[in-house]
Amino acid sequence: MAKLLSEVEREALLAPLVQAGWSMVDGRDAIEKRFEFKGFVSAFGWMTQVALWAEKLNHHPEWSNVYRSVDVVLTTHDCDGLSILDVELAGRMEALAAA
Amino acid sequence: MAKLLSEVEREALLAPLVQAGWSMVDGRDAIEKRFEFKGFVSAFGWMTQVALWAEKLNHHPEWSNVYRSVDVVLTTHDCDGLSILDVELAGRMEALAAA
Repeated sequence: MAKLLSEVEREALLAPLVQAGWSMVDGRDAIEKRFEFKGFVSAFGWMTQVALWAEKLNHHPEWSNVYRSVDVVLTTHDCDGLSILDVELAGRMEALAAA
Repeated sequence: MAKLLSEVEREALLAPLVQAGWSMVDGRDAIEKRFEFKGFVSAFGWMTQVALWAEKLNHHPEWSNVYRSVDVVLTTHDCDGLSILDVELAGRMEALAAA
């Protein structure tokens, strides 16, 4: 079962994500980011790659897509807040978007 | 370029969609429906099938996914409202969800 990130872990692990454009969601212990792509094929192609990782990690995003844009929210329902799984999935999303 | 549905077309074409669970979006000339699946693999699998059709029709949904649930909004930005493309894509979504 996933555990909430400690204060020390938050400082160490969230800072690089904030630098990459992630921010805290108002009123929730969750992070969010808008990813923009060249068009629908790139956007949905990225979502498909992320979906395979999400299933592998057994950790799934809340996300919405309008044409070339994907809005992502990450949090861990099991522990009602941010866990290491969110950091892992966010990192994977960044790597796939950069690839 | 897509044209807005006429009143006659609306009556004929939207009625079956309403019966299938679609409804008008408040304040927009758009239709919406929540699709529920067995789990993430089924939900995202369906999205992938729909994405291929969306690209083929060159008509894309606004949609969001949380685990096994997918919320869809359809409208046609070109004509700022419902066109035959929305009816076609909704019908395709229904057929794929039923398959």
